[in-house]
Amino acid sequence: MSVKTRIESDFIGEKEIADSAYYGVQAVRALENFPITGNKINDDLIRALAMVKKAAAIANFEIGDLDEEIKNAIVQASEEIIEGKLHDQFIVDPIQGGAGTSINMNGNEVIANRALEILGREKGDYDFISPNNHVNMAQSTNDSVPTAIHIAVIMRAEKLLDVMRDMQAAFSQKAEEFDDVIKMGRTHLQDAVPIRLGQEFGAHARVIGRDIARIELSLEHLKEINIGATAVGTGLNAQPEYIKHVVKILSEISGYELVSAENLVDATQFTDGYVEVSANLKIAMINMSKIANDIRMMASGPKAGLAEIVLPARQPGSSIMPGKVNPVMPEMINQVAFQVQGNDLTVTLASEAGQFELNVMGPVLQFNLLQSIDIMTNAFRSFTDYCIVGIEANREVMQAYVDRSLGVITALVPHIGYKASSDIVKDAMKTGKGVRELILEKGILSENQINHVLNAFEMTNIGITELPEE
Amino acid sequence: MSVKTRIESDFIGEKEIADSAYYGVQAVRALENFPITGNKINDDLIRALAMVKKAAAIANFEIGDLDEEIKNAIVQASEEIIEGKLHDQFIVDPIQGGAGTSINMNGNEVIANRALEILGREKGDYDFISPNNHVNMAQSTNDSVPTAIHIAVIMRAEKLLDVMRDMQAAFSQKAEEFDDVIKMGRTHLQDAVPIRLGQEFGAHARVIGRDIARIELSLEHLKEINIGATAVGTGLNAQPEYIKHVVKILSEISGYELVSAENLVDATQFTDGYVEVSANLKIAMINMSKIANDIRMMASGPKAGLAEIVLPARQPGSSIMPGKVNPVMPEMINQVAFQVQGNDLTVTLASEAGQFELNVMGPVLQFNLLQSIDIMTNAFRSFTDYCIVGIEANREVMQAYVDRSLGVITALVPHIGYKASSDIVKDAMKTGKGVRELILEKGILSENQINHVLNAFEMTNIGITELPEE
Amino acid sequence: MSVKTRIESDFIGEKEIADSAYYGVQAVRALENFPITGNKINDDLIRALAMVKKAAAIANFEIGDLDEEIKNAIVQASEEIIEGKLHDQFIVDPIQGGAGTSINMNGNEVIANRALEILGREKGDYDFISPNNHVNMAQSTNDSVPTAIHIAVIMRAEKLLDVMRDMQAAFSQKAEEFDDVIKMGRTHLQDAVPIRLGQEFGAHARVIGRDIARIELSLEHLKEINIGATAVGTGLNAQPEYIKHVVKILSEISGYELVSAENLVDATQFTDGYVEVSANLKIAMINMSKIANDIRMMASGPKAGLAEIVLPARQPGSSIMPGKVNPVMPEMINQVAFQVQGNDLTVTLASEAGQFELNVMGPVLQFNLLQSIDIMTNAFRSFTDYCIVGIEANREVMQAYVDRSLGVITALVPHIGYKASSDIVKDAMKTGKGVRELILEKGILSENQINHVLNAFEMTNIGITELPEE
Amino acid sequence: MSVKTRIESDFIGEKEIADSAYYGVQAVRALENFPITGNKINDDLIRALAMVKKAAAIANFEIGDLDEEIKNAIVQASEEIIEGKLHDQFIVDPIQGGAGTSINMNGNEVIANRALEILGREKGDYDFISPNNHVNMAQSTNDSVPTAIHIAVIMRAEKLLDVMRDMQAAFSQKAEEFDDVIKMGRTHLQDAVPIRLGQEFGAHARVIGRDIARIELSLEHLKEINIGATAVGTGLNAQPEYIKHVVKILSEISGYELVSAENLVDATQFTDGYVEVSANLKIAMINMSKIANDIRMMASGPKAGLAEIVLPARQPGSSIMPGKVNPVMPEMINQVAFQVQGNDLTVTLASEAGQFELNVMGPVLQFNLLQSIDIMTNAFRSFTDYCIVGIEANREVMQAYVDRSLGVITALVPHIGYKASSDIVKDAMKTGKGVRELILEKGILSENQINHVLNAFEMTNIGITELPEE
Repeated sequence: MSVKTRIESDFIGEKEIADSAYYGVQAVRALENFPITGNKINDDLIRALAMVKKAAAIANFEIGDLDEEIKNAIVQASEEIIEGKLHDQFIVDPIQGGAGTSINMNGNEVIANRALEILGREKGDYDFISPNNHVNMAQSTNDSVPTAIHIAVIMRAEKLLDVMRDMQAAFSQKAEEFDDVIKMGRTHLQDAVPIRLGQEFGAHARVIGRDIARIELSLEHLKEINIGATAVGTGLNAQPEYIKHVVKILSEISGYELVSAENLVDATQFTDGYVEVSANLKIAMINMSKIANDIRMMASGPKAGLAEIVLPARQPGSSIMPGKVNPVMPEMINQVAFQVQGNDLTVTLASEAGQFELNVMGPVLQFNLLQSIDIMTNAFRSFTDYCIVGIEANREVMQAYVDRSLGVITALVPHIGYKASSDIVKDAMKTGKGVRELILEKGILSENQINHVLNAFEMTNIGITELPEE
Repeated sequence: MSVKTRIESDFIGEKEIADSAYYGVQAVRALENFPITGNKINDDLIRALAMVKKAAAIANFEIGDLDEEIKNAIVQASEEIIEGKLHDQFIVDPIQGGAGTSINMNGNEVIANRALEILGREKGDYDFISPNNHVNMAQSTNDSVPTAIHIAVIMRAEKLLDVMRDMQAAFSQKAEEFDDVIKMGRTHLQDAVPIRLGQEFGAHARVIGRDIARIELSLEHLKEINIGATAVGTGLNAQPEYIKHVVKILSEISGYELVSAENLVDATQFTDGYVEVSANLKIAMINMSKIANDIRMMASGPKAGLAEIVLPARQPGSSIMPGKVNPVMPEMINQVAFQVQGNDLTVTLASEAGQFELNVMGPVLQFNLLQSIDIMTNAFRSFTDYCIVGIEANREVMQAYVDRSLGVITALVPHIGYKASSDIVKDAMKTGKGVRELILEKGILSENQINHVLNAFEMTNIGITELPEE
Repeated sequence: MSVKTRIESDFIGEKEIADSAYYGVQAVRALENFPITGNKINDDLIRALAMVKKAAAIANFEIGDLDEEIKNAIVQASEEIIEGKLHDQFIVDPIQGGAGTSINMNGNEVIANRALEILGREKGDYDFISPNNHVNMAQSTNDSVPTAIHIAVIMRAEKLLDVMRDMQAAFSQKAEEFDDVIKMGRTHLQDAVPIRLGQEFGAHARVIGRDIARIELSLEHLKEINIGATAVGTGLNAQPEYIKHVVKILSEISGYELVSAENLVDATQFTDGYVEVSANLKIAMINMSKIANDIRMMASGPKAGLAEIVLPARQPGSSIMPGKVNPVMPEMINQVAFQVQGNDLTVTLASEAGQFELNVMGPVLQFNLLQSIDIMTNAFRSFTDYCIVGIEANREVMQAYVDRSLGVITALVPHIGYKASSDIVKDAMKTGKGVRELILEKGILSENQINHVLNAFEMTNIGITELPEE
Repeated sequence: MSVKTRIESDFIGEKEIADSAYYGVQAVRALENFPITGNKINDDLIRALAMVKKAAAIANFEIGDLDEEIKNAIVQASEEIIEGKLHDQFIVDPIQGGAGTSINMNGNEVIANRALEILGREKGDYDFISPNNHVNMAQSTNDSVPTAIHIAVIMRAEKLLDVMRDMQAAFSQKAEEFDDVIKMGRTHLQDAVPIRLGQEFGAHARVIGRDIARIELSLEHLKEINIGATAVGTGLNAQPEYIKHVVKILSEISGYELVSAENLVDATQFTDGYVEVSANLKIAMINMSKIANDIRMMASGPKAGLAEIVLPARQPGSSIMPGKVNPVMPEMINQVAFQVQGNDLTVTLASEAGQFELNVMGPVLQFNLLQSIDIMTNAFRSFTDYCIVGIEANREVMQAYVDRSLGVITALVPHIGYKASSDIVKDAMKTGKGVRELILEKGILSENQINHVLNAFEMTNIGITELPEE
């Protein structure tokens, strides 16, 4: 059985296209040229590109450069894509040469053909609606694709921020729950001085707040878009009125307060806005990796580890060791941290490789940036729901560590000095005796004084505990 | 309409599983726990895991620990997977906590259920064939999964090496084709002394040869596998005879001469073998990125660039600039280079994160390593077929650069010294006169001598051109 | 001849110290333990540590915990170090185990011994003034060293920002100077449409402005300090009154408006503030690397390159090729960009490695962060003074590229469409004829219309040039 | 008082040089141009450069191009530098534009002036002995400097390898010493099955052996040198005979079996040999970082940690917490690992940035590569001497972990199956009872059988322990 086809052409030559296809000759060339990752273009990037096309069509109509009938068809086709339709017609690979021309032309073709169909015409009738002349009117890949990427990154990242806020709340809730749980603070993995488990979780909540703020700020920077820059940032073939309109309309469509970049030449050749987002994602993951490590260490055991906390059991941990439960959620966080760091390097390298009026490495850049955002969103959701909220404290274990610890001696330093205190610790290590016992034995303090000063809970608050008079 | 289901359980609890599914309770848990990347497990990793399961079943049978009927069923189920069947039953995400237990158990479950089916039994009848007791017999995730990853990496990388050899041959062919094309050599992007285009392409062929050799060697190292190490490398629950058998059988199945790691404890906790492969992939891409950059610069223009070579036109380069053709193939190579560098960082970080007897970051590690191999394979194939073989030389342009260059003065240094030569260049820059003209004008050499010494073709060979006697 | 020595001891044991030395037993241990890089502690870190010690002494005096005589001596000793004295007494290596305890104790010892000397006592008389009890009073390494690093980074980075502002001004000045210089814009290294050299330099000035703003903002974040956190962030042994005083005094001494971190536990275990600075330094260098690459390509030649601009000749470029001048300044910028990216990775890895209440990797972190700041400062100063300000434009060369370019056809797209325009370019490439010639030949536009539309200068401004009526 | 000076000039112009200086005008220009890091050129790079100059002088003499008197003077001057003299005359910064021309010319000038002095002539008398014509005869920076870097890297790395062999021996010695120490193996930081401390240390020794072998192999690759390539790899101005001689002589001088690169064009533009060394250094540090982490975790405590081993106390660990001892040696190893990873990124980026016939980023590349080698050498020496050899085992603590662990159940899986074993563990966790107790209680095995199967020492060897008949 033969598939019905149409012939499309560009200045390279002709191609036979299945007539069911909304994409056209240039998408097919890209498919042939770049069978690289096998991944699809991110859905929100497809949506954002359709938003750009819709906004451009309306703006071109408003300044009198585009016919109303064609405008309406382009708008309707774009809206369908924004609603999630026709995404299977985006066939190009995320990694591709050409700075995103293939993404842009794939979109231009799908919209042109769907618009033609809406108007009751044949697909491929580009004399009537041309992917280049009409859908891409007053645009270049070099402004429409970066603008779409900006919007897509913001859309995805807002979902991430929601999940991060939930995760932060979960940590805050645990901070409250564990506010009275005393444990040994550790520095260098060595016993230091007492701290409360709630203080630790509170610190985690707080650093996540800082991570959220950093990401939010860098998204603000992305709201500066270069639509209207066209090929090299000079705005050739884009009317000043068009630019004003398109930015305003795109703000309405996307729901973000977008502004035109102050210097379009700059905005077309530098991609530091992406690297900034990526860097802030990376920093968030560095912090999360540290948190995951702490949780894994605290949960180590059950019998030959620290065993300070218990994580929810999510799955059998071993195919050979019965009953073993592993900290799979924080392990996943660590791995996402490694992935995001790798992606950040890729984003950085791609951004450094801009040349003259353009950075042509946008495809690999958006692929990694969007992947980082997505896997963080997914990972944090699982981590919050399947791990953080269910963490339980082994209060007795933690108290026992404090009770036998020598680090509590630190509270005595203001009273007996660093050197005398060191000698007691040395003795304790040698003899196996406790700090309290040795202080009494040596007659340094009375029992009452010791009770007062060696109060672990008090030690978790700022200050020096004064010695009671004898 | 209701789907027929069965109930499976593990020590965490019960799960309802669609009865059509070959995977079981643990795969379903992993699916819920890790909805991270949306990517699938690499096909060759699925195949390699089935090879391991097949080999283990045979070995366990041969040493008398596994019943023949069950062995046969496990072998048949594994072979089906090796042939490419049932891959849709591998539902877990490449990034997952748990060191690959979910990959391993997904495989164990699919094989157990298919084996049960082969024997005319119900899926889920694990008392008869258990994913843990039979399919996973004498194995742990900690030896079977790394062994499978080793084999998968070798399988994928061999395809890569084939493509690299083709690419090298294409460069060699171009080296021959362009052996007589004189051009200006450039250092610091500044005119240096003449070289032949063929010499440049020959250098590219040669460095690719070095890249191939490096990758080959690191694959050799991966042929040391840790099967038999079981949980922590001590081989608990794996009979010495079993280990001998399984390595031999796995060698036959895979077609690679695998050997048992000399120290299984070492081989289970260190993952430097992967980092070595990844580093060598990265080095290859560094070299390829440099080659891609050179090709893009040589092809720059057509009117305002170097215009030394012409690349095959693969697609229209711009949605706004008519007739523009861009170097999309080398641009893709650059992007793959950035991706592979990012992946290499992820592999490195994951490898550094091993703790005690195991590195639990294997999932993200294999995901990145296999992606690097795959995208390199795909990219090199396109680059070779769609770009290298079709490169054409602009001989006249290159000759013109040589003719007007001042760098040829270097051939005179052995005869008139560095300082006198520098003065001529300074004069030439000031007056716009040519080197030849100035030498004659200043009476430094005769025309015959100049013709002899300033022979650009001769300059591309080792040596000093002697001055003819006057 | 024998050197006069004194014996110092700590709880590890005794050490003989040259009596001329102001450092003590712990610095000597560190010197033995960590002979790693051979580099010195950054001068501004030494100064900042002395500021912390001075502030702590005053604060402790003000709350009644430190004797006035001792306070005065510590203050005077600290001030001498702030003025640049005694820096040779800081003998520990920047890379060291122990989270900076060796830096801190080296400082405590130098100050204690100098203070003893000021009071007419013997060095080493630690019963009178103890490095731990008096100089380090109410402090831990874990708050005093991070606080000092924050201040040192701000001090160094302010110098960097000054140099960046000068560099930005130099680019702006060039933007003005070259505002009327038409050249071919390039995307993908391929001819695109005209742009002005001044627009390019203006874009460079603008991105540097963004880089400055990013760095400034991250320095603001560093003004949150953790002094008073003591060992684990709980503030054990630090009086609440002391903390208020010390932050206020340190603000006055340093000249920065420092504030106490809202959550001292958080501020002691997370080091994202450093990673943020480092990321922003990296982003600045990514942008500068791109600028350096563009400048090197534009300056390529002189005879076989683009030759659009001429850089000041700073040194002979070759030991063998006479008269060769290389773009050594932008090459240095590229190298600094690579160094800063490497340093940023080190900072990132070090920051990820925090555990529980502390990140002990501070030494390598500050070493890399401060090096990045310093080499950027030095490199930008040379780049500005020795390169940017002296750049000259080859106006004729650039005009010639525009004149023969085909990219100008883009201005016709709004009038004759993308497809017809593409056909002209294809013809031009085939025949060697110019765009203007072919349009006339084909009777597409009149000469008057062509002159109007193909005006390169106009093309560098936003908009569509309307066709004059015929 | 006025310093006596001489005037030197190059084609840029004149410079006044202190007459005591052996360096000349070009070194002074570089000093002005590149005040970047403040570091010095690595001593062994200075030595290696002198070896190259000595070898070239002899080779040029042997083929009749250099006068004997001048040759002898150059040789003597070079030898002095090889012996360590005149290194203070190398004034240029390691990071510099110009591909190492400044290093090369600094060397050429020092040798020329010292040679002139040897012959009783004035410094600066370059008509008699010229830095370019005589010392640099038949060389370019582009072959002499890379050749010197190759040799310097080998020289430094051999010292590193010696230290690594010592470190490996120390681990092997500990493996033997601790061969009978049973402990709980851990995977995912969770209790797994027993292992012997000696097995862990043995694994460490073994991976270091692999690291050594990798570095050794990459040094072999560096023995391919490009001397004779001159400016662009074509060997212009280098006689074929000269190349044969110089490689042979340089082999003798350096003591390494150097060979001429098969393809000099390739060898001049690609720098993958360095990246390979750097990658292998990085891999070694990844492994060492993992080892350091394990050691730090095992040594955690003393009262609230794992406390499995005790490290030698090297220095007081805290300025505030008395008696605290921190694992400063492994912490230093971690930091060196971070530094080497950062350096590896820099080396990678620098190597990727080659263009056409040369990679001009050699200066930053060698700076980072040599620093990595040096800090590894220094760090490993301290780590070996001050930490590894003194590690002590807390046998009782480790035995206690094994005794109370549930992971030993794994040995029962071959006998009672995975599911029944899991149920016992679940019971044990719920009731707090031990595995042994529960098995007896449930009547699964007899006491004799339990004693036989639950033998922890046996579990650390390959195999299944058979059940004795009842």
